Amino acid sequence: MATVPSVSYSITVRLEVPAGGKAVSLLTHAVENAGGVVTALDVTNAGHEKLRIDVTCAAKDADHVQAIVDSLGAVEGVAIHKVSDRTFLMHLGGKIEMQSKVPLRNRDELSMAYTPGVARVSLAIARNPEDARRLTIKRNSVAVVTDGSAVLGLGNIGPAAALPVMEGKAALFKRFAGIDAWPICLDTQDVDEIVATVRAIAPGFGGINLEDISAPRCFEVERRLRELLDIPVFHDDQHGTAICVLAALTNALKVVGKEISEVRIAMAGAGAAGTAVLRLLLAAGARNVVVCDYLGAVHLGRDDLDESLRWIAEHTNGDGYGGDLRGAVKGADVFIGVSAPGILTGDDVATMAKDAVVFALANPEPEVSPDDAREHAAVVATGRSDYPNQINNVLAFPGVFRGLLDAQADGVTQEMLLAAARALAAVVTSEELGPNYIIPSVFHPDVANAVAAAVRESAGGRARGFTEA
Amino acid sequence: MATVPSVSYSITVRLEVPAGGKAVSLLTHAVENAGGVVTALDVTNAGHEKLRIDVTCAAKDADHVQAIVDSLGAVEGVAIHKVSDRTFLMHLGGKIEMQSKVPLRNRDELSMAYTPGVARVSLAIARNPEDARRLTIKRNSVAVVTDGSAVLGLGNIGPAAALPVMEGKAALFKRFAGIDAWPICLDTQDVDEIVATVRAIAPGFGGINLEDISAPRCFEVERRLRELLDIPVFHDDQHGTAICVLAALTNALKVVGKEISEVRIAMAGAGAAGTAVLRLLLAAGARNVVVCDYLGAVHLGRDDLDESLRWIAEHTNGDGYGGDLRGAVKGADVFIGVSAPGILTGDDVATMAKDAVVFALANPEPEVSPDDAREHAAVVATGRSDYPNQINNVLAFPGVFRGLLDAQADGVTQEMLLAAARALAAVVTSEELGPNYIIPSVFHPDVANAVAAAVRESAGGRARGFTEA
Repeated sequence: MATVPSVSYSITVRLEVPAGGKAVSLLTHAVENAGGVVTALDVTNAGHEKLRIDVTCAAKDADHVQAIVDSLGAVEGVAIHKVSDRTFLMHLGGKIEMQSKVPLRNRDELSMAYTPGVARVSLAIARNPEDARRLTIKRNSVAVVTDGSAVLGLGNIGPAAALPVMEGKAALFKRFAGIDAWPICLDTQDVDEIVATVRAIAPGFGGINLEDISAPRCFEVERRLRELLDIPVFHDDQHGTAICVLAALTNALKVVGKEISEVRIAMAGAGAAGTAVLRLLLAAGARNVVVCDYLGAVHLGRDDLDESLRWIAEHTNGDGYGGDLRGAVKGADVFIGVSAPGILTGDDVATMAKDAVVFALANPEPEVSPDDAREHAAVVATGRSDYPNQINNVLAFPGVFRGLLDAQADGVTQEMLLAAARALAAVVTSEELGPNYIIPSVFHPDVANAVAAAVRESAGGRARGFTEA
Repeated sequence: MATVPSVSYSITVRLEVPAGGKAVSLLTHAVENAGGVVTALDVTNAGHEKLRIDVTCAAKDADHVQAIVDSLGAVEGVAIHKVSDRTFLMHLGGKIEMQSKVPLRNRDELSMAYTPGVARVSLAIARNPEDARRLTIKRNSVAVVTDGSAVLGLGNIGPAAALPVMEGKAALFKRFAGIDAWPICLDTQDVDEIVATVRAIAPGFGGINLEDISAPRCFEVERRLRELLDIPVFHDDQHGTAICVLAALTNALKVVGKEISEVRIAMAGAGAAGTAVLRLLLAAGARNVVVCDYLGAVHLGRDDLDESLRWIAEHTNGDGYGGDLRGAVKGADVFIGVSAPGILTGDDVATMAKDAVVFALANPEPEVSPDDAREHAAVVATGRSDYPNQINNVLAFPGVFRGLLDAQADGVTQEMLLAAARALAAVVTSEELGPNYIIPSVFHPDVANAVAAAVRESAGGRARGFTEA
């Protein structure tokens, strides 16, 4: 799958070699010969005759791991002891935990945190339900809810297999915005049951982050929950992506000196992410968009339009273009792909307008090779961390929820999403802005605060529900 | 409600007094005169003319707090600034949080904990679902589920008001057994909806702790969930109480030299706790029990028997006694109350058999005054921390779940509950055993481990479902 060795596929090989001058360099050589990248090498035991060494290196995939281990094993005198996968080691026992914020050292502390003292706190909330935001975890907690139907690019792998992803998401919520998130992996993929379950568990949470639920069910789940609940419901695959894309596009258009209201935009992908990106682009002023799915351009003349595709057809493609993606891209100022790997070539990008902007966000394999795209486009962004301009939802969701929770918002509005995108774009200063820096790094210290402040301000009057474009 | 000042109702009064030799003693005097107990006194600012002092003291209830504050305010020259409730301060913002166990300092760590690295972990679980216990939080996480219908002694106060109690419970799970528990407060009290919701959220948890769900709905909720789920379901109000009562009774009978199979037991309370206590007593060999509810003794001749009461009538009261609690207690060796305050007097206890055992567990006001009971009974236990022999569920549930999780048990059996009770009783050595020490302190370092080991061993063969007595 991956084309270059990645630390996300990193192994540690414990082995023994005969002690001698060249032992270490023979090992690093063996890894490099097999195409691996050595990231660490520790001699963990040095005897007179033998050295025990841990070689850590990045690989591409399982076959590549085997090739590296074989190459190491072929070095004269080497005995391979154990091959550990660092990613699996990191996940052992799970990646998050619950911690008490109160001491429970003695009976007095117990009697304040639990019975009998807690009874007075419960009674206070029973008398004044708003106090739950003050006296419980509700003020800072988010449920990360999935049904396991569209996990990363892996598809419908189910709730248990989705759990490592949701744990990671929860860890990111804490790392980037101090939010206490807990994974809720659902043993159902029925819309009614998902809605009923999330509605039932909502009282203990200040927000709901829907995650990796497949389209079109995700639209109905989100819409119905927003009607039912008095806390914000945010489907990250939709709106997190939309915020990041709009922020990046805002800055990319500054780089090439074009206006969003004037550019022609070709999109690939009409699923959860594509639909949300489209809606936010339109709300931000885009007027000339053609959306393609695997059947070609979405237009009113197609007879396969479900509710979501019909909405797209009604709000885009005014000329009723009925051709394929390749044709839609021709002469376009902007291409935004949230679809499938390798559906365009560098030659296609060459047919775009002058100073083209290409966002090829399919992961890990983009819609068009970034290297090829960069030969013809002025600005290229991907979802990958090994190229410039990584468009990553981690830029959006922590700050969005920080702002929502701080404002005690009871819903999410399109205005908040626009405000978040504007704030995210503004983190890149005019001095920093350039073709290879249209969006800040996920580790940029200002990102979450800037997004949170914008959302908090936008939520000022306590918005309810979700106003579509 | 409380009859003595309690640290669970502890206040800090910030005030200013004129500087002078007697300022401090006048203040402590004023608190004591009002019946309060000073637990701390800090001079937080000492000027030439004035001292600012924080007086912390324990009170009985809200009226008592006012009386203490009035008494302090009446001291000459005192200006009261602020009265803080220490219990509420402890609950501000909630008592638990989520923490990441993995570092997320840089892109490499991000790429192992989240995409793209996490995809391989998810795929491994999709291929082999059992790996979820190894590679996710499932191995150590418990959902603390309530519908807010029977919270402590407060009744049906709803899910939001129940949250402080569930947070406290989660904190206790961590403190006493290292378990990661998260509160799930349900916005429904419908049995079908509760069952459907818990079933749906189960994949991410290794166990379900039901809490403060009123009888008789709790019986059906538990029974149906046990049939549906492949993780243990444990209603603490039932089985936690039953384990502690059986452990305490085992030791109390040793103190008085009687056998459980020989004694006559009178019980007050046929709700969730009472029913579970009865079932475990019968499983442990009790043969002569009469259970009373607010209508008197439960027997087959009553025409108001629901399913649960009918079971009780069929398994107890072989003589068909039809009188009231007072009559049932007469001549009994053991009284166990899990019911209502003040329903018996010392005179009633005096009618019991020689060397009587009295467990008066209604909280905070027992079925009979422990002071009065101790005049006539050989062993007295309550649910209160200000008397000897406190019967507290914290003695059971942390160790029980520790054992269940470690054994990767897919259910709870009566055998496990019996094993837990035996292990809890055995923590009290024969040298320590006495009328005032039949059950260890919740802070006894061996309790959770002993209970966990017994449950783990009993679960050895991976039990499924729940075998009633």
